[in-house]
Amino acid sequence: MSDYDADAAEELAERVRSGDRRLYELEDYADADTAAATRRRLVEEHSGADLETTADYSLPAGQAAESNIENMIGAAQIPMGVAGPVTVNGGAYEGETYLPLATTEGALLASVNRGCSVIDDSGGAEVRVTKRGMTRAPVFRVSGIAEAEALAEWARDNVEQLRATAESTTSHGTLLDVTPYVVADSVHLRFRYDTADAMGMNMATIATREAAEVVEDETDASLVALSGNMCTDKKPAAINAVEGRGRSVTAEVSIPREAVESTLKTSPEAISEVNTRKNLLGSAKAASLGFNAQAANVVAAMYLATGQDAAQVVEGSNGIVSMEAREDGLYGAISLSSIEVGTVGGGTKLPTQAEGLDILGIRGSGDPAGENGDALAECVAVGALAGELSLLSALASRHLSSAHAELGR
Amino acid sequence: MSDYDADAAEELAERVRSGDRRLYELEDYADADTAAATRRRLVEEHSGADLETTADYSLPAGQAAESNIENMIGAAQIPMGVAGPVTVNGGAYEGETYLPLATTEGALLASVNRGCSVIDDSGGAEVRVTKRGMTRAPVFRVSGIAEAEALAEWARDNVEQLRATAESTTSHGTLLDVTPYVVADSVHLRFRYDTADAMGMNMATIATREAAEVVEDETDASLVALSGNMCTDKKPAAINAVEGRGRSVTAEVSIPREAVESTLKTSPEAISEVNTRKNLLGSAKAASLGFNAQAANVVAAMYLATGQDAAQVVEGSNGIVSMEAREDGLYGAISLSSIEVGTVGGGTKLPTQAEGLDILGIRGSGDPAGENGDALAECVAVGALAGELSLLSALASRHLSSAHAELGR
Amino acid sequence: MSDYDADAAEELAERVRSGDRRLYELEDYADADTAAATRRRLVEEHSGADLETTADYSLPAGQAAESNIENMIGAAQIPMGVAGPVTVNGGAYEGETYLPLATTEGALLASVNRGCSVIDDSGGAEVRVTKRGMTRAPVFRVSGIAEAEALAEWARDNVEQLRATAESTTSHGTLLDVTPYVVADSVHLRFRYDTADAMGMNMATIATREAAEVVEDETDASLVALSGNMCTDKKPAAINAVEGRGRSVTAEVSIPREAVESTLKTSPEAISEVNTRKNLLGSAKAASLGFNAQAANVVAAMYLATGQDAAQVVEGSNGIVSMEAREDGLYGAISLSSIEVGTVGGGTKLPTQAEGLDILGIRGSGDPAGENGDALAECVAVGALAGELSLLSALASRHLSSAHAELGR
Amino acid sequence: MSDYDADAAEELAERVRSGDRRLYELEDYADADTAAATRRRLVEEHSGADLETTADYSLPAGQAAESNIENMIGAAQIPMGVAGPVTVNGGAYEGETYLPLATTEGALLASVNRGCSVIDDSGGAEVRVTKRGMTRAPVFRVSGIAEAEALAEWARDNVEQLRATAESTTSHGTLLDVTPYVVADSVHLRFRYDTADAMGMNMATIATREAAEVVEDETDASLVALSGNMCTDKKPAAINAVEGRGRSVTAEVSIPREAVESTLKTSPEAISEVNTRKNLLGSAKAASLGFNAQAANVVAAMYLATGQDAAQVVEGSNGIVSMEAREDGLYGAISLSSIEVGTVGGGTKLPTQAEGLDILGIRGSGDPAGENGDALAECVAVGALAGELSLLSALASRHLSSAHAELGR
Repeated sequence: MSDYDADAAEELAERVRSGDRRLYELEDYADADTAAATRRRLVEEHSGADLETTADYSLPAGQAAESNIENMIGAAQIPMGVAGPVTVNGGAYEGETYLPLATTEGALLASVNRGCSVIDDSGGAEVRVTKRGMTRAPVFRVSGIAEAEALAEWARDNVEQLRATAESTTSHGTLLDVTPYVVADSVHLRFRYDTADAMGMNMATIATREAAEVVEDETDASLVALSGNMCTDKKPAAINAVEGRGRSVTAEVSIPREAVESTLKTSPEAISEVNTRKNLLGSAKAASLGFNAQAANVVAAMYLATGQDAAQVVEGSNGIVSMEAREDGLYGAISLSSIEVGTVGGGTKLPTQAEGLDILGIRGSGDPAGENGDALAECVAVGALAGELSLLSALASRHLSSAHAELGR
Repeated sequence: MSDYDADAAEELAERVRSGDRRLYELEDYADADTAAATRRRLVEEHSGADLETTADYSLPAGQAAESNIENMIGAAQIPMGVAGPVTVNGGAYEGETYLPLATTEGALLASVNRGCSVIDDSGGAEVRVTKRGMTRAPVFRVSGIAEAEALAEWARDNVEQLRATAESTTSHGTLLDVTPYVVADSVHLRFRYDTADAMGMNMATIATREAAEVVEDETDASLVALSGNMCTDKKPAAINAVEGRGRSVTAEVSIPREAVESTLKTSPEAISEVNTRKNLLGSAKAASLGFNAQAANVVAAMYLATGQDAAQVVEGSNGIVSMEAREDGLYGAISLSSIEVGTVGGGTKLPTQAEGLDILGIRGSGDPAGENGDALAECVAVGALAGELSLLSALASRHLSSAHAELGR
Repeated sequence: MSDYDADAAEELAERVRSGDRRLYELEDYADADTAAATRRRLVEEHSGADLETTADYSLPAGQAAESNIENMIGAAQIPMGVAGPVTVNGGAYEGETYLPLATTEGALLASVNRGCSVIDDSGGAEVRVTKRGMTRAPVFRVSGIAEAEALAEWARDNVEQLRATAESTTSHGTLLDVTPYVVADSVHLRFRYDTADAMGMNMATIATREAAEVVEDETDASLVALSGNMCTDKKPAAINAVEGRGRSVTAEVSIPREAVESTLKTSPEAISEVNTRKNLLGSAKAASLGFNAQAANVVAAMYLATGQDAAQVVEGSNGIVSMEAREDGLYGAISLSSIEVGTVGGGTKLPTQAEGLDILGIRGSGDPAGENGDALAECVAVGALAGELSLLSALASRHLSSAHAELGR
Repeated sequence: MSDYDADAAEELAERVRSGDRRLYELEDYADADTAAATRRRLVEEHSGADLETTADYSLPAGQAAESNIENMIGAAQIPMGVAGPVTVNGGAYEGETYLPLATTEGALLASVNRGCSVIDDSGGAEVRVTKRGMTRAPVFRVSGIAEAEALAEWARDNVEQLRATAESTTSHGTLLDVTPYVVADSVHLRFRYDTADAMGMNMATIATREAAEVVEDETDASLVALSGNMCTDKKPAAINAVEGRGRSVTAEVSIPREAVESTLKTSPEAISEVNTRKNLLGSAKAASLGFNAQAANVVAAMYLATGQDAAQVVEGSNGIVSMEAREDGLYGAISLSSIEVGTVGGGTKLPTQAEGLDILGIRGSGDPAGENGDALAECVAVGALAGELSLLSALASRHLSSAHAELGR
């Protein structure tokens, strides 16, 4: 149970009731645990709820209130488990590891675990990050298309100046490129950064804000919004599926025919057929950007377990699965275009999330910089591959809903 | 700190090490807390991690291990806070409430809170669920297009039989309709259910499994997969953006000009321009299914706080925002097409999540059935609207990255 | 050479030069051939062009000026050819036929012809129309979401009144259904019609205009636009790919292994691999709504040859191709979701286009009504299938650019 | 009437009937007019059609048979007209011109003409090409993700070698860049070329074929298909909407309030509202890649009139329209991302199409090279803008279906 000063909380609550204090400023008048307790009291009064378990957190409230949340009342507890161990043969990650996953959806861990098992038995998954870059794309208003053309050209010609300015705001980020897009009298400039081991949205935003000021100083364009939605952050957008955001990563495995039959209880041909009719043709017919069975399940669970931004599960679900029946077995792969992860900053500093990263052995900065970020993306991809193998084979052998029936309630 | 039998854990760990027991079956040999402790011990050995905080959970391990997770090792703690209070004038929800949000991303709660404040000052948000229906779409293999045509027709003609069978598996769900889609020699039948206060994926899956057996019995079609990806679950897919899944819900507010200027520090015209250039034209150019600024942020945080499925944030981000400058102020609205939520089942039974629902006053079954599910969707939409108003006005007045700079690290 | 009165043309031209007459009203003062000649004269003066061949048309200018074009100056001539014969085993079309195609792109006819040949040798293509319906979706403004909800409900409850009104404007069309979609304070009502043998856009527009007046009379909604882009006409839109527009049609063929090898110079496996990597995985990665190789080429050429609307090639390209290697050969199929064609009205009455339909034997109204429209859609699908088979096998055996090199310049 | 040798045609027909000759090889045994006559005879026999008007062409059959079509039987005649004149203030095109359009859809020319009129009265349209590049993207098979990563890197490092090889095949094309995309064990390399005044698909295909051989020689990759659908040619694909293909071009105009009211019979505010609810919000809800009212209509008609590839209307419809009501009137713009046009090669050499280009004054190669291609794209964009202005204002003042009723039958 978190520790706080109950009298101070009651006194503070009274001042909020009387209008002297506002709910969001309580950390200015008390320690964070007491501020949270004050809010729980007020919220309980207002709603009739009893927030007993929410109060029973073990995270450092001061740190959380400073970096992760405002108006804190406690913590939500999400069950956490592990799948594996599984061998990851990555460009950045090399070794056998458990994968940490946090979820409330029964059957998920069991599914990933089964996939990990067959991957591990097959010698592990090969995995590579093939593209990197966190983006921020401000939108500018120009006087018309002639000025739009000029701005696009100016941006292409002055990348060095933009880079110098952008990089002056960060010790870790480097500007990779700036791509202009014209829509009527709006010009979007998509800045793409290497943000090393940070997921990098804040870094990219701050750097781009400075660069946008240069654009305004040097041209006639006016900034309309620091994000013009061509970044694209936390929306399902084709630009991310096509061009990638964060890390584009592919994991693959070759599973001997015997293992498919004995462990997955089906055949390479049956899995390939399910993949074609469901993940490819079905997704095509649904006009989907996700050609997979359940990538988002694994991405969400690993993001929660390692302190990533839960809303970025949206683009984390942009994945394409290939399952090919070959003479000697099954070739399976998943390509995830936009895995936006970091091992420093954001939620990664919170205790349970840091422990999640510790399970993978990649908390904090990598050496060289960026290595841990790559490694995390690789582990997520292997987890997603495990999820696909397991679910596709379950569908192929028809026990999807019985699995849920047994495990999911 | 959760309670377990340390000796039993060590003994069990030894049996796993020796290969006598498997990691996933420990609940068969010990209580769930001890099983989790055993796993922590093994994972710590394997990874070198210290899982001290993960161990410090207050959720009922037995219940979680049965319904929410396998291979449990503890819990991830996500900071939880509240925004509001905000007045919700809904079809199902009526009243002023705090909104519970769990997140690790600084600045989010502050942003939603600011939006709630301006909504509340404007008399609250009007909100309605305009469509309902959880879907599951199995894919069948047929011998060719002639049989596909026949199956599509059969499905249209035999909805009653399918309904009777599907509904025999559930006391709460009702089958709304079945829509056939043909892709070469694959036929997808999209079953849509009213699942009352449950999010309904399990219910829909189980009901559809039974119905699919009828299809196989009565026709020559063979089931390939109980989900053929036209459901579409947890993938960004246009079918959900167009036709909806779960609840389609719209929240709106009219904000007097003075409030826009004093509270949001900008003008209706400036907000409308940002919305047009960013959320509409920018998203259009990015080929996005999300025409909003940060709906996913709010959806994710409210889902985590109330025990929803985090992976369904994917389709939760399918939202279209309208911001219209009018003579007397700003009309703002967000239409979210696929909010898949429930107040019973899944993660809603876990203690902190149940408390999150209690803050809203809508834990458990609604009266009439479905009312609580609707109410939750309405609250999520109001939160998302608050997030849009706040972020768009911040962009309009240019302090996005400074907000992050102050709050986000 | 078309016949006209040169003196009258010169005199009329002079009156346009002097401002007495406007270019678009010349048919009010002369026969259509003379009006066209007058315009050519003026355009030639303005541009320096010599419009000699444009003048050399054999279509009835009066009819064209009344129904197909304004400001006519003559005709563009598009080379027309045939592919086939090919056997069509359709629901509406049964028999062996040549397919008429008009194009300026060398190599296309040869490609389709090769595909027709292998289809014909395999006993013809099986083909079925599995869904029908031309849509028009007006958008209404309402006072807010409460009224939007009410309007959606009203529309569901009053289909009969809308049907009676809509159908009062047409002797051939029947209203199939009306689907409401809500976006903030806009409500789209998607009217779907069976338009028999007409492509049906005009019919649907006129009928919907009447029905929209009923909506305005009976509710508080105001019509903003008779088309709110959810129809969706002539834009690449997922709603058409998912739900279909016009006719959804699938053509398939089973080709013996020997024929694949001898005629297509490759193997079922190689064609299947090209289809998977190109049409499925490649289109997925491009975030495409078209999972085919060249459907638009065939659709465009057959539309031009039979008097269809060339702009509807856009949605005509929404097609998904399946190629499966089986023990005894190749199963190939294409599912086109939105083939919007007619055998009456529009360009079908023009002489060369009517002759194009005569080659297929389906000019004018079908018996029963709609049969010819279905038949045309079936023929287009077979042509598209032929194009896929030919191009995919050419790619599989690597002579795409050499084919172009020989035929395309 | 085209000239041919009737006896030779009958004799040749007899040899086809007897199986001595094949339909597609007749040009080897007779002049092209006679070959076409032979085919007409056979098709007439087979179908019962009378191909009299199809026979009455004035295009040079020999040239067409060599470059534009195989199995030629004659020509389809499409009514051709002009809209305008309209002033084009472009980067490449400067001056007042008529726009040639060929269509069978009544009301289209009138619509564009009305739009041209209001643009011209407003001083003309400003228009710019902001991006250029014809693409071809072969797909290669690699042994796995490690090799995929290596190939992507190789391609980035060896652009100069690829450029030298690609450009060796062409005197006009230059390779702009090569972008790798990885999907499992497939690697797509998207080659982008400046193809000057040619639309450039053939040029790009031939150049890429050579470059692909270098890839195969220098790496372990195997070419699967010279086009892997990431080009993307003739399919509605987000990659083209986002990144452009051919020319990305924007046309804009500022129309004084009085002109909107007197000529367009509505107000800037009403047009803006229709644009927002229909082209932006409506298209968003339909999950469309086209945020316009009728761009494809104009693109199709101008493509047909100037010898472009009709199937490329598909990507020509990727356009975003902005309509902003300002104090002094209306700002209107359309941004078309993928206008794939040329003034040399393909259908541009045919007589009526060449005359179409002559009306614009841009037949053949530009000076400097590429100028005519740009100019044509600019003219198409101005035509599309005219179409939008006209249709949106017609909707705003509610006479869409009456316009069709009067003009369209």
